[in-house]
Amino acid sequence: MPKISSKGTAMPLSPIRKLVPFAEKATEEGKKIFYLNIGQPDIKTPQVALDAVSNHGLTTVAYSHSAGNESLRTKLGEYYRKHGIEVTKKDILVTTGGSEALIFTMGSITDPGDEIIVPEPFYANYYSFSTQSTVTVVPVISNIEDDFSLPSIAEFEKHITKKTKAILICNPGNPTGYVYSKEEIKQVADLAKKYDIFVISDEVYREFVYAENNDHYSVLQEEGMDEHAIIIDSVSKRYSMCGARIGCIVSKNTRVMDTAMKFAQARLSPPTFAQIASEAALGVDESYYTEVVEKYRLRRDALIDGLKLIPNIKFSVPRGAFYCMVELPIADAEDFAKWMLESYSDNNETVMVAPASGFYSSFAGMNQIRIAFVLNKRDLKRATEILKLALEAYLNK
Amino acid sequence: MPKISSKGTAMPLSPIRKLVPFAEKATEEGKKIFYLNIGQPDIKTPQVALDAVSNHGLTTVAYSHSAGNESLRTKLGEYYRKHGIEVTKKDILVTTGGSEALIFTMGSITDPGDEIIVPEPFYANYYSFSTQSTVTVVPVISNIEDDFSLPSIAEFEKHITKKTKAILICNPGNPTGYVYSKEEIKQVADLAKKYDIFVISDEVYREFVYAENNDHYSVLQEEGMDEHAIIIDSVSKRYSMCGARIGCIVSKNTRVMDTAMKFAQARLSPPTFAQIASEAALGVDESYYTEVVEKYRLRRDALIDGLKLIPNIKFSVPRGAFYCMVELPIADAEDFAKWMLESYSDNNETVMVAPASGFYSSFAGMNQIRIAFVLNKRDLKRATEILKLALEAYLNK
Repeated sequence: MPKISSKGTAMPLSPIRKLVPFAEKATEEGKKIFYLNIGQPDIKTPQVALDAVSNHGLTTVAYSHSAGNESLRTKLGEYYRKHGIEVTKKDILVTTGGSEALIFTMGSITDPGDEIIVPEPFYANYYSFSTQSTVTVVPVISNIEDDFSLPSIAEFEKHITKKTKAILICNPGNPTGYVYSKEEIKQVADLAKKYDIFVISDEVYREFVYAENNDHYSVLQEEGMDEHAIIIDSVSKRYSMCGARIGCIVSKNTRVMDTAMKFAQARLSPPTFAQIASEAALGVDESYYTEVVEKYRLRRDALIDGLKLIPNIKFSVPRGAFYCMVELPIADAEDFAKWMLESYSDNNETVMVAPASGFYSSFAGMNQIRIAFVLNKRDLKRATEILKLALEAYLNK
Repeated sequence: MPKISSKGTAMPLSPIRKLVPFAEKATEEGKKIFYLNIGQPDIKTPQVALDAVSNHGLTTVAYSHSAGNESLRTKLGEYYRKHGIEVTKKDILVTTGGSEALIFTMGSITDPGDEIIVPEPFYANYYSFSTQSTVTVVPVISNIEDDFSLPSIAEFEKHITKKTKAILICNPGNPTGYVYSKEEIKQVADLAKKYDIFVISDEVYREFVYAENNDHYSVLQEEGMDEHAIIIDSVSKRYSMCGARIGCIVSKNTRVMDTAMKFAQARLSPPTFAQIASEAALGVDESYYTEVVEKYRLRRDALIDGLKLIPNIKFSVPRGAFYCMVELPIADAEDFAKWMLESYSDNNETVMVAPASGFYSSFAGMNQIRIAFVLNKRDLKRATEILKLALEAYLNK
């Protein structure tokens, strides 16, 4: 039998999706599940985007430009400039989701065996994309006690080698919920300039910032970063259209953009209907975000209120994105998560969470879970109640 | 300035798209261009697919299953069984175009430095995807004089090493227009079994077969190939919806499928609207293909009639797909193609073709072009007239 590849074997199963078969079984058995595992918002996609797709008016669904429709890139440029990021369409390459933006970026700047430094815990698929590109993820640990703020620069410097090609940050953070301050971004930028490496900044949660006076600060707003900064972005969370699969790479480094364009040409074009939806969504009124973000702020508060009632856990209050890392007084959070689906229910209801080990490349985080607060407040309240009861039951097994 | 990667540097520009800037300039200057360079059919997408997208009825465009919607995979299974390929939904993974299907397949079965044997000339992006995966393409030459039929098995065997992971074929062939016979497929299959390697068969042009009694024969119809065969497929050409970006991997090898699924999970899901369109398109009446294929048969005949009038060229009469390779009595077909856009016109009209060198990894094919016969008969007639006149003018420069 012909063999599959070593990297294919090394590819991790998604920590967010790996328990899906257990959830399917629980559902078959008639249990109601509160899904806290996946960042799939229940928020409505802007009507203007849905309508634009309905009125697509196409007769032949042709390839688009490999870099994405010019009209979409123009609108994206306007969007970024509104956010203080001075770019135009030529600095933007439309991709099939933020995922493809990251794959193209890794392909453009790394060869097999190269290293990327990533504050840990990190979005699990960073590890998958690195494995796919045979690039080594070098973790620098951030801690739940510090709300997962930026590890010290000395800690980063300790890990920089000749093979280091980039520092990859997620801001606001998935799974941490942390939002880097202007000062922290400046530190990362200075480090990149000092060692002449890239900063890849995943900013797909840009609008989702909850702290007062804590506006999002992009690495591309930092002076002198034109050659070093690469933004990964996506419309998935911003407009609650995860299934559209539209993202982009934003960089002022023309060699990076020209190289990424070669990857883009190879895969021909990003999806047409999704580009139509995205372009329309970009025209949505500012109030759309304000309302959505306010809704998430209240959800975050509801989640935190619920978590406060659970004894002996630790958590970091999210300042952005819609994830909360929780440390449980148990050894194996994955076993607990699976057990909640397989063997537990309260009033025939249970909860699905993402075991956090998948967000670590080290063995840290085995006792942590990630909660996505993408449900309404009432459901979040009930979900934390169930979590509390389940944890008690699990500890008394 | 931080460096881009070696593989990014090695990535080729698309031979199909690299002359686009020259075409844009020609258009700006008021020239009319007949586009023979790109396989973008002018055929209408089935109305049922367009309508399904218009009536999407979604309120939140959520992630789908990483393997694609179950309903789509079920319909795809029915489609394959109708074509004598005995698979069900579990053997099918929906991807973002055939491109992603090939990237996932290469990722699942190759590590950096591994080799894939490909009959040359081949679809240019095979080289791009191999470069992206740091896999070496090992070409086995097929010839225009033999209509690009399968090179001898001895020729393949000469190139098989310990690093050979697969033979990659395109059937019907892009850019060759050749359709492998049942006997040829059997030979490739036997070879794969003998050396315990995979056969990756790109069958996106399955329906586009013009020879009488020359039905398409898939590598998955061949006995005993369950462990060795991987089909790459796409709805792009079949339903004239290249921009949708829906393809799939089809294989009975569960380890391949489980591994590809890990790549699929990392990128979350294929595009939602395009899945809706594809599922609807699969319900289209058989007469849709019959009419489309008949139209292409007549176009092929119109093209060949036109080419016959051009002295001192060689071409292979396409038996399938919608490409025709033409050898010109000149040294550098790319220079000629560029010249036609930059410096030539007849009655203010010119032609854009794809230089064939990009379809070769060797230096063969420098004097060849690929013509995509995706225009109506009248336009094809005019395009070949212009090609004849341009060639005369170029030779008399």
